[in-house]
Amino acid sequence: MTAHMRIEKAMACLTQIVGERATRVPGILDGHGRSEAYHAARPPDVVVFPESTAEVKAIVGLCRDLRMPIVPFGAGTSLEGNAASLEGGVCLDISRMNTVLAVNGEDMDVRVQPGITRKQLNAHLRDTGLFFPIDPGADASIGGMASTRASGTMAVRYGTMKDNVLSLEVVLADGRVIRTARRARKSAAGYDLTRLFVGAEGTLGVITEVTLKLHPQPEAISSAVCAFPDLKAAVDTAISVIQSGVPVARIELLDAVMMRGMNLHAKLGLPELPHLFFEFHGSKAYVAEQAETAQALAGENGGLGFEWASTPEERSRLWQARDNTLYAGLALRPGAKAMITDVCVPISRLAECLVETAKDIAETGLICPVVGHVGDGNFHLLVLMDPEKPEELPRAKAFNERLVDRALSLEGTCTGEHGIGFGKIEFLEKELGEAVDVMRAVKLALDPLGIMNPGKIFKAPGQEGGHP
Amino acid sequence: MTAHMRIEKAMACLTQIVGERATRVPGILDGHGRSEAYHAARPPDVVVFPESTAEVKAIVGLCRDLRMPIVPFGAGTSLEGNAASLEGGVCLDISRMNTVLAVNGEDMDVRVQPGITRKQLNAHLRDTGLFFPIDPGADASIGGMASTRASGTMAVRYGTMKDNVLSLEVVLADGRVIRTARRARKSAAGYDLTRLFVGAEGTLGVITEVTLKLHPQPEAISSAVCAFPDLKAAVDTAISVIQSGVPVARIELLDAVMMRGMNLHAKLGLPELPHLFFEFHGSKAYVAEQAETAQALAGENGGLGFEWASTPEERSRLWQARDNTLYAGLALRPGAKAMITDVCVPISRLAECLVETAKDIAETGLICPVVGHVGDGNFHLLVLMDPEKPEELPRAKAFNERLVDRALSLEGTCTGEHGIGFGKIEFLEKELGEAVDVMRAVKLALDPLGIMNPGKIFKAPGQEGGHP
Repeated sequence: MTAHMRIEKAMACLTQIVGERATRVPGILDGHGRSEAYHAARPPDVVVFPESTAEVKAIVGLCRDLRMPIVPFGAGTSLEGNAASLEGGVCLDISRMNTVLAVNGEDMDVRVQPGITRKQLNAHLRDTGLFFPIDPGADASIGGMASTRASGTMAVRYGTMKDNVLSLEVVLADGRVIRTARRARKSAAGYDLTRLFVGAEGTLGVITEVTLKLHPQPEAISSAVCAFPDLKAAVDTAISVIQSGVPVARIELLDAVMMRGMNLHAKLGLPELPHLFFEFHGSKAYVAEQAETAQALAGENGGLGFEWASTPEERSRLWQARDNTLYAGLALRPGAKAMITDVCVPISRLAECLVETAKDIAETGLICPVVGHVGDGNFHLLVLMDPEKPEELPRAKAFNERLVDRALSLEGTCTGEHGIGFGKIEFLEKELGEAVDVMRAVKLALDPLGIMNPGKIFKAPGQEGGHP
Repeated sequence: MTAHMRIEKAMACLTQIVGERATRVPGILDGHGRSEAYHAARPPDVVVFPESTAEVKAIVGLCRDLRMPIVPFGAGTSLEGNAASLEGGVCLDISRMNTVLAVNGEDMDVRVQPGITRKQLNAHLRDTGLFFPIDPGADASIGGMASTRASGTMAVRYGTMKDNVLSLEVVLADGRVIRTARRARKSAAGYDLTRLFVGAEGTLGVITEVTLKLHPQPEAISSAVCAFPDLKAAVDTAISVIQSGVPVARIELLDAVMMRGMNLHAKLGLPELPHLFFEFHGSKAYVAEQAETAQALAGENGGLGFEWASTPEERSRLWQARDNTLYAGLALRPGAKAMITDVCVPISRLAECLVETAKDIAETGLICPVVGHVGDGNFHLLVLMDPEKPEELPRAKAFNERLVDRALSLEGTCTGEHGIGFGKIEFLEKELGEAVDVMRAVKLALDPLGIMNPGKIFKAPGQEGGHP
């Protein structure tokens, strides 16, 4: 069967399964080949919009029969080409599977279809007294967040997706449908399959249901920003706050360059110095106590005073500006595209990593604002590139490679939260060495035909010499 | 080669690797076939005491060449026969690998060899301002706790081993040594191999190093006990406390029968009614606030008043009594042995599960004190059996089977924290169905010869029809 015939056959069979929800309209194919990253589009041959686990199972069965790749697609907000259709095939857009299936208030958990976004979920939960805290900035889908082991600003307090997924329903490459765990809060029942699929980027199966932990909406929230004379003072403050046991809900680092972008984009009117943005959750008295402790520690480390955002409006303006750092960064170089780096190092090595990186930036002449989840040691640089100047891409890539090498030499990781996708395959090899062979062995055991999101995380089993 | 010749050969080679630290002394073999469980001893053929990763690697290579089982053994405190040598072979006692390799204070982590026990580790950390909170009661080894995904009384606040292991060094069945992750606080770098080995009960490899998260020693700690008229009032209180967002450090349920045992064993002099034992961690003011909230919620739910244990001595007496519930239970029936059950259900189903179980206990005529990590929905029954009355064992087993069926029907798990070992293989099949085939596929990929702790978690790949 030629590739063309295979696609025709797939389209005919998919139409039998989902009717008009299978499409080859070029604009839709192209849209599903793109993400928020700088990579060139890698569109699929067909996009299909399933509405149920049964449909996903049928589609996976079809792709298996036809040996066609299956690429799950959520909200399209990933940053490492995690949902690029590198080998064409069928893109499984799960955005119509966005139902809340069950809210269990007493147990503080919720069962959802994977296509629901985090904001849709929190809107649904508003009156329950509970919320889902993981906030990667973008309004990502829950399935996508699980698949990339996402985290974001609140991970320092509430953990990452690894800590907040209780159980998954997954359609395997051979069409079987499994549930990885029961709804109990904890379990020691065999291998932790939930955590195996969280972060697998769709290479082991398609997530069709997610049971999430929820958290009580805090009685009180307060936010503050604090400027520092240099990055090290800000990082030292973060270390002191974490070590003091203050369960800070968010503690975000923004460098002077990023502050300039934010002033440009969101008219914050803040000094163009390194800043920490804080948020505290808890009872009224406890929030006050946390803030007082953090304020004192900032003072001891050279902080230039807390500015409070106590009303919901001020708070929301502040965190909206933080969520929009991509656009704030782009405001520094209109027309640019950003390569977003994602290293994470032990917090004791963070200042060193940032200072060395600042020197590198100065030498390269790139514009690279910094924003970081400093409580976790994870930070992003927006490497701004002019698409009209193609010579900047290799410079940016070389810079990122040096950054990753620096992070690895400091016991860090090449990705705190964006995943490997296809852009960081060689970094993963550098980072974990033979452990990647273990991943490959697991992949081969669960997807021997290699149809699940091929070319991601590692080179395909048997193709280690090649390149995706 | 006969079995006898193989053992002789192994012993000769092991002596070359570790000298006199390989032994066939019958008392030592027998000691390594036993645990704290009621199961009959299943001793290995040889016990070896490695002192380094290099020695473990050499021993695994030898066992591979000779096709001999390898059973890692920590402190011998597991409860489901997790370290029983079902098929003989080499028992790898890692108790001499108990060095603290690096304390990173600023990063709040520690790298240890797996044989160190949690009490040894906390003694080492005493002056650092940090501690390792996971407390399963017994003074288990860190490697064993990682392997069984242990948790215990503080999991409600600090999580389980899954949440507190940052990285592992593992010797695989083929002798390769991998590190599962870097020391960064979080990572999205490929499959979560750390969580794959946490809870694998030594069936996928031998853990030779563990990097753990640590937590700040709380500025203040306070403990209280509260009696309730019935179990439901106690459970409802626990639900309210958790939902209120109070980050209770421990919230333990003890039923009236267990309280009688504790009064007998530890002379607590408390009313023989269902109790909650609380512990609060934090700043002085915040501990007071948490306690006040919990006290109010207990009052609303029929609690009969808080009794405070504010001095370190009183607190330690209370929690020591809690840690010794096994002996307290045994005090109710001198000479008895205990089968310890371990179901965990969503907290909203806990009261129902406990009440139905109490009826079952009444009908069987068994004596079964209850102790539970009620914040997680996990509880244990000590099914007391007279070893002189062998007919009690099948009765106890049938009771446990009904209990597991009940938990499963309430969306729970057969094991909250003790693991599957060889005693719960059929329960795991009932609980997760085809997902167990996925575990088996992973096992086959990483240990094709089936030498790593055979007969645990599931029937061996290819032997699904048989029985371990």
